[in-house]
Amino acid sequence: MDTTDQSQASKNRKPKRSIIDCDIHAGSFSDEVLTYLPRIYREQIKTFGWRLPSQNAMYLNGTGGGAKQDENFPKEGGSASYLKYFQTNFLDKHNIEYGILTGTGSYSIQTIPDADYAAAVCSAYNDYGIDKLLSQDERIKGSILIPKQDPILSAKEIDRVGSNPDMVQVIVANGAEKPYGNRFYNPIYEACVRNNLPFAIHVSMEGIGTNPAPTGAGQVSHYIEYRAARAQIMATHLASFIFEGVFEKFPTLKVVMIEAGTLWIAPLLWRLDQDWKALRSQTPWVKEPPSEYYRKHFRVTSQPIEMPHKPTMFLPMFEAINADTNLMFATDFPHWDFDSPTLSLPKLDEELWDRIFYQNAAELYGLPQRRNQ
Amino acid sequence: MDTTDQSQASKNRKPKRSIIDCDIHAGSFSDEVLTYLPRIYREQIKTFGWRLPSQNAMYLNGTGGGAKQDENFPKEGGSASYLKYFQTNFLDKHNIEYGILTGTGSYSIQTIPDADYAAAVCSAYNDYGIDKLLSQDERIKGSILIPKQDPILSAKEIDRVGSNPDMVQVIVANGAEKPYGNRFYNPIYEACVRNNLPFAIHVSMEGIGTNPAPTGAGQVSHYIEYRAARAQIMATHLASFIFEGVFEKFPTLKVVMIEAGTLWIAPLLWRLDQDWKALRSQTPWVKEPPSEYYRKHFRVTSQPIEMPHKPTMFLPMFEAINADTNLMFATDFPHWDFDSPTLSLPKLDEELWDRIFYQNAAELYGLPQRRNQ
Repeated sequence: MDTTDQSQASKNRKPKRSIIDCDIHAGSFSDEVLTYLPRIYREQIKTFGWRLPSQNAMYLNGTGGGAKQDENFPKEGGSASYLKYFQTNFLDKHNIEYGILTGTGSYSIQTIPDADYAAAVCSAYNDYGIDKLLSQDERIKGSILIPKQDPILSAKEIDRVGSNPDMVQVIVANGAEKPYGNRFYNPIYEACVRNNLPFAIHVSMEGIGTNPAPTGAGQVSHYIEYRAARAQIMATHLASFIFEGVFEKFPTLKVVMIEAGTLWIAPLLWRLDQDWKALRSQTPWVKEPPSEYYRKHFRVTSQPIEMPHKPTMFLPMFEAINADTNLMFATDFPHWDFDSPTLSLPKLDEELWDRIFYQNAAELYGLPQRRNQ
Repeated sequence: MDTTDQSQASKNRKPKRSIIDCDIHAGSFSDEVLTYLPRIYREQIKTFGWRLPSQNAMYLNGTGGGAKQDENFPKEGGSASYLKYFQTNFLDKHNIEYGILTGTGSYSIQTIPDADYAAAVCSAYNDYGIDKLLSQDERIKGSILIPKQDPILSAKEIDRVGSNPDMVQVIVANGAEKPYGNRFYNPIYEACVRNNLPFAIHVSMEGIGTNPAPTGAGQVSHYIEYRAARAQIMATHLASFIFEGVFEKFPTLKVVMIEAGTLWIAPLLWRLDQDWKALRSQTPWVKEPPSEYYRKHFRVTSQPIEMPHKPTMFLPMFEAINADTNLMFATDFPHWDFDSPTLSLPKLDEELWDRIFYQNAAELYGLPQRRNQ
């Protein structure tokens, strides 16, 4: 076997035990989604287009369209044909017991000024996702896309589809006009808690549409800088949730941070714990060290996992971010920076592996244990 | 000796060998600075005030005015009286061979729209600093405040005072309308290189005056969140310098990052090195891994040093940020979050201690070796 074959074989290796993948993207088929919209919006879309601001209009990506080059998605047959490809070439191939779709539509809709239209499109995406994907395969779980421009309409959408057991969380883009701890969003968290659903933040839409520039120093020029800025905005949200006292108001709320990296969380918590000791009189409602709020209320997905220069730093950094309870594996299929379940993480002992690849997500989302133990 | 006395004694302990402190703030006395300004601006100030937007108008600080509560600065006698206090109660007390003043005026002047007035005030601050402080004690070194609103005027100011051997760097606030790698600033870097001066960025003015909101998700509500946002903006500048190719244009330029923390640099470099491998075709002028540009071109001051939850993480994290060559000790005197030279850092071996507390700064700023070895 030459090295190319070896590398191919190792790429195709399945995890021995089934896993939960916490960040998967499904293509949405516009002509199918359209049928879920009221006639007025169908006509507007026909005349003016979808009104979806996009990263591609401002920045490059890793590949054209952002997808892996070694996938051959079917060009015809719509969602039914897509689903078949997805089942065989992804869920079966990687031994995925549950795959969490992080939205069944575009986050762009959360960054347009017209909140009523955004609400209608979110409902259409959610209904489309339930009909065409979630109800077709019990392995596929979904995230409720909300018109976050309007927290009251968002709460209505959460109440509308939140009782569907296949919808396991509420999802928003990382790009935001205000940090997510701001009281503006409270109706969303009330609805999350009422429906027992985590609130998930997925990198996307930073600096796009209604959002401000992606950094506190304005626009950056290149995609690689833009990717680095995403972690910063996620850090802003993390601190905002804690210091605005969101978890004092909503003690059962859980927040999932998706695709913004993981290891930066350690120095951030060191900084926040230290500053909290010195400055806690300014935010007296924050009762515990910030790292405790993180441990209890946040979960973080692994992809794109950072590679410390010294491999010996991996496990101490994992410990510093409470990987055993807070880290959940994700591939980001089908995107270009896909993390393979068998190749992307360092060698872990069996217990830690099982926490990261299965149990942390199963507990958070209330998913049953493996069918084949 | 009771514990209070012990703690007082340990607070007052001097470093055995003299040190270089890379972040010191001197009070500026408005009535004295005024005499260095043209008459038109003296009259405008008399009528309208100084036009200095301030953090205090938006956020709290650690103490009123931001200073340590155990200092008793003289209330009368202006800069001469201040200088005496500063020499006895700071430079002598802490065995400081050189202390780098990070500006002799307010960074606020860099965030007002009127660039001509900003240029005049920067010149006045610089001249005041040279006359009243730098020329009075050979231990005190200064930083050139520039009207960064206008890079051409900034270059003129650097050329005007840059040949004074007591001015050891050019300084700007971290808050910025554009990341500092942007080509807008090139005339400043040309002047830095021409005068053999490092370019220093000191946290301040994020979200204030002409600057955008301090995060990519808009305004934050509390000072502790604001402090966390500062590191994010510094991270934006770091990535911007590298990916805009500033060091390809100015191969001898050095950049000093002041008061934004240190340990967050490690996961940022891991992320950037990894992404650079995947995305380098998009920025082909970036020839080496980002961590190499960091090692060669950046220096970072220690205060406020992060405390890892596990003390055993300190040295591996120091190694990950190249502390032996890139970290320079700073107290941030007289601010409330002052880091003591004898108490704030973990126990270091003698060689590493000497690099961080003396040699790295001596090499960067071209300062002579200790008088008493």
